[in-house]
Amino acid sequence: MSTLCRAQIKKDTALEITGKTKIFYMIAHPIDHVRSPEVFNPWFRENAVDAVMIPVHYRPDDFEAVWDSLRHTANLGGFMVSVPHKEKAYQLCDEHHETAELVTAVNAVRRDEHGRLTGANFDGPGFMAGVLAGPHEVSGKSVLLVGAGGAGASIGFQVAKAGAERITISDLNTSRATELADRILARFPKVNVRLGSIDPKGHDIVVNATPCGLHPETDSIPVELDNISSDMIIADIIMKPRVTPLLAAAKEIGCDVRYGGGMLDMQRDLTLKFYGLKI
Amino acid sequence: MSTLCRAQIKKDTALEITGKTKIFYMIAHPIDHVRSPEVFNPWFRENAVDAVMIPVHYRPDDFEAVWDSLRHTANLGGFMVSVPHKEKAYQLCDEHHETAELVTAVNAVRRDEHGRLTGANFDGPGFMAGVLAGPHEVSGKSVLLVGAGGAGASIGFQVAKAGAERITISDLNTSRATELADRILARFPKVNVRLGSIDPKGHDIVVNATPCGLHPETDSIPVELDNISSDMIIADIIMKPRVTPLLAAAKEIGCDVRYGGGMLDMQRDLTLKFYGLKI
Repeated sequence: MSTLCRAQIKKDTALEITGKTKIFYMIAHPIDHVRSPEVFNPWFRENAVDAVMIPVHYRPDDFEAVWDSLRHTANLGGFMVSVPHKEKAYQLCDEHHETAELVTAVNAVRRDEHGRLTGANFDGPGFMAGVLAGPHEVSGKSVLLVGAGGAGASIGFQVAKAGAERITISDLNTSRATELADRILARFPKVNVRLGSIDPKGHDIVVNATPCGLHPETDSIPVELDNISSDMIIADIIMKPRVTPLLAAAKEIGCDVRYGGGMLDMQRDLTLKFYGLKI
Repeated sequence: MSTLCRAQIKKDTALEITGKTKIFYMIAHPIDHVRSPEVFNPWFRENAVDAVMIPVHYRPDDFEAVWDSLRHTANLGGFMVSVPHKEKAYQLCDEHHETAELVTAVNAVRRDEHGRLTGANFDGPGFMAGVLAGPHEVSGKSVLLVGAGGAGASIGFQVAKAGAERITISDLNTSRATELADRILARFPKVNVRLGSIDPKGHDIVVNATPCGLHPETDSIPVELDNISSDMIIADIIMKPRVTPLLAAAKEIGCDVRYGGGMLDMQRDLTLKFYGLKI
C-alpha cells in the first residue's frame, strides 16, 4: 500500500487522523461490543502506520444495499466483518482467499485500488496459531468441537486441514452440526468426522466454540466435566473473561488449558498481512 | 445524543476508539488535503466526547450511489461535505437548515437515529463570526466580494442577511457572478447587489473568497492594490498561509486585516452545535 507513509511518522507518538489517513472498518450488528478497533489501532500507532479502524454499524436488512458503497470508498483499505454479516459478505465478495472458501464465510475483506473486494476468514487460522501451538498439535489427534456456528466452522475446517484423526462435532442445533460435518467431509474425505455429545471422553483436544462462558454467572458449562482427564488440552474461544468456568474447572483437573485471547492477536496479525501492512 | 458518553471518559486522555464510538465523516474528492479531522478530533478528545471523524473519499461519479449507505450507517452522527459534493449533497438531503437553503449547497449534514439527513452550510456564518466580528460589522456597509464559488456564495448570502448596504460581486466567471447576484437579490430584494471589478474603491470591506493566495509564489493578488485605503477591512478566507500576499500588502497600507483561520474554528463550533455536541 503505497499511500501509507510509515517513514514520515515518528514511532510511538499519538497519530493524528488527517486527509491522508487510510481507513478501515469493523462492520457488525450490533456494534457496541466489537473489539477490533482496540486491537488494530494500537498496532497502527506503535508501528507508525497512518491508518485508523472505526466501528461501522450496518443492520442486516441494509447490508446488501450498502455493499457497493464499500467498493466506492476510495481510501478504504479493507474491513473486518462480524456477526451476522459473515456469510452474506462471502457471497458478495469478488474473490475469496483459501481460508474463506473453506468456511464460505468471511471475517476480513481487502479492497484493492480498483474497488475489488477479496474475502478471507482468519477465525480458524487465528485459533490454530494463537490458541493451539499450530497445526502439528492437532495432527493425528482426536478433537471434540463444541459449537458449529461461524467460529466453530472455521476452526473445524482448520482442524481437518491440520490432519486431525477424528473430529466430533457437538451443537444443540443438530442440523447445523450435520451440515458442518458434511461440508468438512466433502473437502477432507479422509478425516473421521461425526456428530456427538458434549462428553469429552476419548478426545485429546476439546474446543469450546460456543458463546457459553461469556456470562459466567448464568451460562452453563458447554462440556461435560466428569469425563475430562488431565492429559487433555482444553481450549476456549471466549476472550472475556480470560478464565471461563470451563477453563477454571479444567485447570483444577490438571489439564493443559488454552485461553481465547491469543486468537484475536493472531487474527490481527494474519489480517494485517492480508491487508499488506505486515510482513 | 444519548449514546455519547462524556461522563465516563477522563478529560485530556487520548481516547481509544471502541465499538461505542460515534463516527463522523469528512467527505471530499480529492481527499488528501481535507483539514476537518484535525479540527474536530482534538475537540472531541479535549471535551471527552466519544466520537471520531475520518476522511472518506467518494469520487463525483459515485456520490449519488453511496448516499443511501450514509443513511444506513446506524452509528454515523453526521458528516462534513467538501468540494465537489456540496451542491449534490444539498439536492439529496431530506431537510435543510436555513443556512443551506440560502446557498443551495451544504457543508455539514446531520443524521438522526432514523437515518434522516439534514444539511447546513456554515461557510458564511463561520466567516461572519470567525473572520468578521459578527453581522453588526457588515450592517450598512459596502462590501466587495471577490469570488462567487461555494464559499463566496455562502458569504454573499450572510453579508446580505446582515444588512450590507451594497455588495459588489467580482468573479472571472461572470455567469457565476451574475447567478449569485440574482439569487441574493431574489432572497434579499432591498440589498444593492451588482457585478463589478476587483477595484476596491468605495468599499468598506473587501473579502477574498477565491483560492488566490494558497500558492503565494505563483498566484496573482485577487484585489487591485492601488485603491486600497487604510480605513478598509481586508479579509481573506485562505487559512494557509495565514498571511496571504493580499493581507501582507493591506497590512502595509495600514488596513484592518482579517485572517481566514478563524473561519474554520467558528465553522467547527457551529457544526458541533448543529450535531448536538456543543451548547
